Amino acid sequence: MPADCLFCKIVAGEIPSTRVYEDEELVAFEDVQPQAPVHVLIVPRKHVPTLNDVTDDDAPLIGRMMRAAARIAETRGTAAAGYRTLFNVNAGGGQTVFHLHLHVLGGRPLRPGLG
Amino acid sequence: MPADCLFCKIVAGEIPSTRVYEDEELVAFEDVQPQAPVHVLIVPRKHVPTLNDVTDDDAPLIGRMMRAAARIAETRGTAAAGYRTLFNVNAGGGQTVFHLHLHVLGGRPLRPGLG
Repeated sequence: MPADCLFCKIVAGEIPSTRVYEDEELVAFEDVQPQAPVHVLIVPRKHVPTLNDVTDDDAPLIGRMMRAAARIAETRGTAAAGYRTLFNVNAGGGQTVFHLHLHVLGGRPLRPGLG
Repeated sequence: MPADCLFCKIVAGEIPSTRVYEDEELVAFEDVQPQAPVHVLIVPRKHVPTLNDVTDDDAPLIGRMMRAAARIAETRGTAAAGYRTLFNVNAGGGQTVFHLHLHVLGGRPLRPGLG
């Protein structure tokens, strides 16, 4: 674990977060600067910096992150109305914490612009 | 295959598209209304309406879609500078074609608003 990784510290419980889901591989918690009524981040427990660093062996983990996103959307009552899941990759993609994290946004109609 | 599914028709070659990648499971093609210099859609060949319909058995497929996104970003020269991958789910999430599709946007710095 990189000593300075914010999300590794959240996974380890060294920095508090409002967890909404966790299992052996994943932790999901509220974004502290939410852009929508539902704005949850899902991270793997293991440190992977960006989507560019995901290997073929990690692909099932990515799929399970996306399944977790759908379950969270259901739990939060926004699955039927709609939501968006996204990975920002590197600076030009808007990534600011370099531990892979999936954004789940919903709870209101989202703006059509994607970037 | 639903008779009226636009992306099933693109997968079948009944409607033309500019393909950038394909394999046994996936087809990737240029979005016809691009929101960025790179705007590719990646779809599974099989018809899955939305992310809500993805099963645990499909999870590895979702992971492979994301791996394909990273490879396409690399090929298009935007992997290092940055890009964004996203699923819109249902109307409130901005989904307009109900065949699961992953947006890959890049080629310029993306706006920070996620929805």
